[in-house]
Amino acid sequence: MRAEIIAVGTELLLGQTVNTNATYLSQGLADIGVDVYFQTVVGDNAGRIVQAIELARSRAELIVFTGGLGPTQDDLTKDALADYLGKEIGIHGPSMDKIEALFSSRGMHMVESNRRQANCIQDSFPLVNDAGLAVGNALSQDGTHYVLLPGPPREMKPMFNGPAKEWILSILGEERRLYSRVLKFAGIGESSLEQALLDLIEGQSDPTIAPYAKEGEVAIRISTKAVSQLEAGARLDAAEEAIKERVGKHLYASEDIPLEEAIVRKLRATRRKLASAESITGGLFAELVTDIPGSSGEFVGGVVTYTNEMKHKLLSVPMTQLEGPDAPGAISESTAALMAERVRELTDCDYGVSLTGVAGPSESEGKPVGLVYFGIAERGKQTEVHTANLSGSRDIIRLRAAKSALYRLWQRLDNEK
Amino acid sequence: MRAEIIAVGTELLLGQTVNTNATYLSQGLADIGVDVYFQTVVGDNAGRIVQAIELARSRAELIVFTGGLGPTQDDLTKDALADYLGKEIGIHGPSMDKIEALFSSRGMHMVESNRRQANCIQDSFPLVNDAGLAVGNALSQDGTHYVLLPGPPREMKPMFNGPAKEWILSILGEERRLYSRVLKFAGIGESSLEQALLDLIEGQSDPTIAPYAKEGEVAIRISTKAVSQLEAGARLDAAEEAIKERVGKHLYASEDIPLEEAIVRKLRATRRKLASAESITGGLFAELVTDIPGSSGEFVGGVVTYTNEMKHKLLSVPMTQLEGPDAPGAISESTAALMAERVRELTDCDYGVSLTGVAGPSESEGKPVGLVYFGIAERGKQTEVHTANLSGSRDIIRLRAAKSALYRLWQRLDNEK
Repeated sequence: MRAEIIAVGTELLLGQTVNTNATYLSQGLADIGVDVYFQTVVGDNAGRIVQAIELARSRAELIVFTGGLGPTQDDLTKDALADYLGKEIGIHGPSMDKIEALFSSRGMHMVESNRRQANCIQDSFPLVNDAGLAVGNALSQDGTHYVLLPGPPREMKPMFNGPAKEWILSILGEERRLYSRVLKFAGIGESSLEQALLDLIEGQSDPTIAPYAKEGEVAIRISTKAVSQLEAGARLDAAEEAIKERVGKHLYASEDIPLEEAIVRKLRATRRKLASAESITGGLFAELVTDIPGSSGEFVGGVVTYTNEMKHKLLSVPMTQLEGPDAPGAISESTAALMAERVRELTDCDYGVSLTGVAGPSESEGKPVGLVYFGIAERGKQTEVHTANLSGSRDIIRLRAAKSALYRLWQRLDNEK
Repeated sequence: MRAEIIAVGTELLLGQTVNTNATYLSQGLADIGVDVYFQTVVGDNAGRIVQAIELARSRAELIVFTGGLGPTQDDLTKDALADYLGKEIGIHGPSMDKIEALFSSRGMHMVESNRRQANCIQDSFPLVNDAGLAVGNALSQDGTHYVLLPGPPREMKPMFNGPAKEWILSILGEERRLYSRVLKFAGIGESSLEQALLDLIEGQSDPTIAPYAKEGEVAIRISTKAVSQLEAGARLDAAEEAIKERVGKHLYASEDIPLEEAIVRKLRATRRKLASAESITGGLFAELVTDIPGSSGEFVGGVVTYTNEMKHKLLSVPMTQLEGPDAPGAISESTAALMAERVRELTDCDYGVSLTGVAGPSESEGKPVGLVYFGIAERGKQTEVHTANLSGSRDIIRLRAAKSALYRLWQRLDNEK
């Protein structure tokens, strides 16, 4: 079944609100095997809402609206659709009772317009709103199915996940559902990943294989339609195997978790602890790791030594190492190694990770923007240092530096497991 | 001029990516007086992209695309539009040079598909991409104007704000332009700010006054249409004065800069240096400050003491202060004070800022989620400690904690200037 999402609200067209509803609904519909082909945003204008409905009818069987169910004069979705379908508007008794009860319990005078929230299009199925006052609607006419949800996400989500999804599933009937799995990769770019999997992607029919990039990481979603989890699982496993054969060394998780979470889990499993010494990333590495709830068991903390003086003061890196005509400088392999070793010793951890480099906008120590060194020190082992030449804006170089260091650490932990 | 935004990308229809580009562009277009009537999302499918173009042409004079300019086979925006307009695809020389130089400088083999990123529709104006490889396009045909921007926000934003906006403004020609000014506030919520300015907002006609919240900060945009900067400036100044009278103590900048940048500037002006000791924010405070280019002159670094052991080891906070039945604990006013003082001493800075608290998901030391203490130590002065009770998810609490600490520091610096 093809679906289209119509988000109604002038605030979206003014850029005052981000259309997270469309994202949420697309995901939820994909999960039950409904393909979203278009998302449309239209303002609070009856004529343009009808225009959007006409268009959506021509290219989808299911139209899901969010927004425009509230009490005010510019909440027009139900009126516009009823008008378009040639139907009357009625009142949903239980919703009206709820509205009246709420106002009387608070001793508040009810503005007449609040009654509008109990409106139901004639012959529609009311979708109860557990988190607000505006009742939703679901109805079918001439082979098109319509679902009307409120705009506020905290009302929309429970209504969609509860009565709306149930109604949609009843229409789908016994159709096969879509099952998918996300594979997460690090240390490889989106286009290289796609290149390595080109034969699979081009030859794909079922399961489908779709790469996508997000925040310094790369993911692949493999999806298949099946009648059961068991049937789907076997097909997804086979696709995952074929992908692993080609790019297995970059695969860090078969679920949608960030790289830092994979690392925290690995450290937890082996009861190891980690500390960091950051220059270029200025705290971002630590921030990413501590963003994982419960990471304090594995990540103890570290230092942000942004200046040479701090590298010397907090980590005892000799000034002769950092400054002077023959010194390697702060941005060097040997400084990265020293930083990693010193923070490990200082914190008495199993691993110390360091990051030093040039985030830009201009070069530093005569070294180019994007040059980064990562050190990984381990108790009783040889320290390793990696180099990367990263591109992008200052922000993105910092993010890529942090993710690259995480990837090197993940490789190290993986080799030792 | 009426505009429509077409975001291209199957990841949007699958709900894997939130369409923040549409929000950003809607806001940016509104700023220069262009009204957005529809936003559309379409997948990576040439037929459906053409369908979206046809429709948009029927209801808008300006069509702004984002996405689908990348190297892969499903990046189709340029091909689809060229096809629709009956134009050839050419190569933008400087962009191709940049792509080739990048790959050769890294000694990497260039996958052929990367050349696609230098594609330009015949007769189009190339929009240079300073943050990535895919060149944008702008062109007019038969009274419709087309602007093609990349999908990744970090590439899209500078291209839109730079060459794309300039091109659109040149089309708008001699019309009265919209001039606006952004005022940035801290230490006050969006609704309190709106409440304090209610008379101005309700009585507004010209300039318009629009509050909006973003990333732990609150901003007001005042806008006016005028024929010159001079005419606009006088009106904007008067509006800013009226706002200052009401909420001046929360206003930290009359331009759109983050709070951390205002602090770096203030420190620079007074030649002071800052260090941080973070627990709850795990590096986020340092990361925000070091995100400002050139901040190493003012921010030397600091420590992330995520565990009690590290607070003791790196900052010499006594264990009796942190643990034991009668100890104040890590999340306490006195620990915040000690952390701020010790990091200041350790780094020999003018200011030490500390953050300790509970980010959640569950309480810690029997203290509730959202409780945060901030310490500010200054050389030769009394240390101050502030408390906040923040709400939101773990991420949001961490961000709000960092911004609250920045606000307290900004107040301190402001009082001393």
